[in-house]
Amino acid sequence: MSYKNHPMVSRVIFGRGSFNQLSDIVAPKRLNIKAPFIYLVDDVFKGNSWLTSRIPISYNDQIIYISADEEPKTSQVDELVEQIILDHKDRPSGIIGIGGGTILDLAKAVSILLTNEGEAKDYQGWDLVKTPAIYHVGVPTISGTGAEVSRTTVLTGPDKKLGINSDYTPFDQVILDPELTKDVPKDQWFYTGMDCFIHCIESLEGTYLNAFSQSYGEKAFDLCLEIFLNGNLEEKESQDKLMMASWHGGMSIAYSQVGVAHAMSYGLSYLLGTKHGIGNCIVFDQLEEFYPEGVKLFKQMKEKHSIELPQGLCKDLGDDEFNTMIRVALSLEPLWENAVGKQWKQIITKEKLRALYQKM
Amino acid sequence: MSYKNHPMVSRVIFGRGSFNQLSDIVAPKRLNIKAPFIYLVDDVFKGNSWLTSRIPISYNDQIIYISADEEPKTSQVDELVEQIILDHKDRPSGIIGIGGGTILDLAKAVSILLTNEGEAKDYQGWDLVKTPAIYHVGVPTISGTGAEVSRTTVLTGPDKKLGINSDYTPFDQVILDPELTKDVPKDQWFYTGMDCFIHCIESLEGTYLNAFSQSYGEKAFDLCLEIFLNGNLEEKESQDKLMMASWHGGMSIAYSQVGVAHAMSYGLSYLLGTKHGIGNCIVFDQLEEFYPEGVKLFKQMKEKHSIELPQGLCKDLGDDEFNTMIRVALSLEPLWENAVGKQWKQIITKEKLRALYQKM
Repeated sequence: MSYKNHPMVSRVIFGRGSFNQLSDIVAPKRLNIKAPFIYLVDDVFKGNSWLTSRIPISYNDQIIYISADEEPKTSQVDELVEQIILDHKDRPSGIIGIGGGTILDLAKAVSILLTNEGEAKDYQGWDLVKTPAIYHVGVPTISGTGAEVSRTTVLTGPDKKLGINSDYTPFDQVILDPELTKDVPKDQWFYTGMDCFIHCIESLEGTYLNAFSQSYGEKAFDLCLEIFLNGNLEEKESQDKLMMASWHGGMSIAYSQVGVAHAMSYGLSYLLGTKHGIGNCIVFDQLEEFYPEGVKLFKQMKEKHSIELPQGLCKDLGDDEFNTMIRVALSLEPLWENAVGKQWKQIITKEKLRALYQKM
Repeated sequence: MSYKNHPMVSRVIFGRGSFNQLSDIVAPKRLNIKAPFIYLVDDVFKGNSWLTSRIPISYNDQIIYISADEEPKTSQVDELVEQIILDHKDRPSGIIGIGGGTILDLAKAVSILLTNEGEAKDYQGWDLVKTPAIYHVGVPTISGTGAEVSRTTVLTGPDKKLGINSDYTPFDQVILDPELTKDVPKDQWFYTGMDCFIHCIESLEGTYLNAFSQSYGEKAFDLCLEIFLNGNLEEKESQDKLMMASWHGGMSIAYSQVGVAHAMSYGLSYLLGTKHGIGNCIVFDQLEEFYPEGVKLFKQMKEKHSIELPQGLCKDLGDDEFNTMIRVALSLEPLWENAVGKQWKQIITKEKLRALYQKM
């Protein structure tokens, strides 16, 4: 048996207002005055000087605002890399992603593709990246995805939705400032928080579970229940704890794997462009068979926060479309093996997945 | 307010038998055939081929067996560094510590002193190390101290017991193989496990607490109760979980601080050479005033495992000796501030500490 030798985020700072230290943190990493820092920032912050005034811009540093309305694409990574290369003679000193999972995954992927030849799609898979990425910093402004701590960056490519999983993917620096999540709309807060909750269930109920993943997964699970179901937390405490839940949930799957909800959600997202958080919720809502206790708790949380999930996403789909979703979902073999065991192919049939998708 | 930008262990591998991957892990880090790997190994493993046969020795690599009967000293670090420099023309490719907190702290300190001039005592304090250490790997064989994850290495010097706290202290690689803890004697298992439990109490009850430390501390606390008090765990599961408890406990204090038990235990250890684990237990047993709930649980665990703590350590001490212990304890200002608050000097008097020490 061989165990993963997991790379960790090199540095982390935690605290309300810690974002103010961004300038002090990146300054020593500047290679020279021509080598800029590139800030990839969620465009919801455009014109929001509370945040943007604290982004330290000097020399040729650049802010690129990016919409997170769509899931990140390999083509988008390639375009960003090309734009950066065209705009700057020198290779950047660093890439700083400020946003939710979409922006953080783009920042990780761009930092990799700036030092690795070819296109982003060439690196979708496990351990295909050969050259260290440039210095990259993650500043989450929504909590739940675990993108701040993971060794993957999930991208939709021309023929699959799959992460760039590599030792060079994790951030060199993460800034965990819960105050940055204060304006997340309620629906998105719930969907992204449930991404974390689902990570825990998939990790804790999976066959890959071990004491490392279990201890992180249990803590994230407890925090999710405190935040979304049983606790009576002040707003700030809730923000602080959800940021830590996301971190621990990400650590839990780092050493195990996700499961059925993520596999099927990738299919939905590949075909319909469904965003990851809400997609996971739509799928997980139908997974009593696999995760009876987790789905029960999920439905209670959904009710408590009056969340109405979209319905009928798949009602007008044709055979080809179902088959596409099923192909993408089934291609994620480690997820199924974790969820169902080594014999998963005998249990998870195309018919079964189609029946599940038809309920969504 | 400024937050610590905490350096993390760069890589971690977890699993029973993961120690078998040591060779694969260190091989790519060899600088050249003259630059050896130096293994600092607890001498309880001398002649234990189950462990030693898996230490990969090539070229000029060297195993140095070290007794952990005494707490690590700055002079011991200096002697090890001198021995390594005399024995090898080239600077080592890496230092690998295999043992409990004593050996791990020595490995960290030696890796620092191989690249930083002067003596180990010059670096006791906070952020005095200026040059990165050489590559260093930690392989814990006893769980609880958190030395595998911390940014300190606690050393007894000529005039104080204090850690080398620096960004360069944390290991570049940690191998968490719970199987390596299988032969720890029961008393030591308890004392070192309680080091972890006390970390949690001191962190969770401290004024420095934040959501980061709280989430790690709560998980380590829950695991300790499961292992030492309420759970009915199989031996292997208990080993696995204690290794994770140690990790999480170490992460918790990384972002907060320890407290009264550690401050007073350092005094005891400086004067009498009391080992850290048992010293913490002897002190903590008398700290109802500061940690009522924690001490109550500690006494229950002590009873459950039929642990008899040594008594009367201080009964024959004179004024000078009490004053020495009190001086060392009071010098650890951040620990007292965390435990009691900014006004701690008004509460923690020499008389109070003397009265507490007299009970031990």
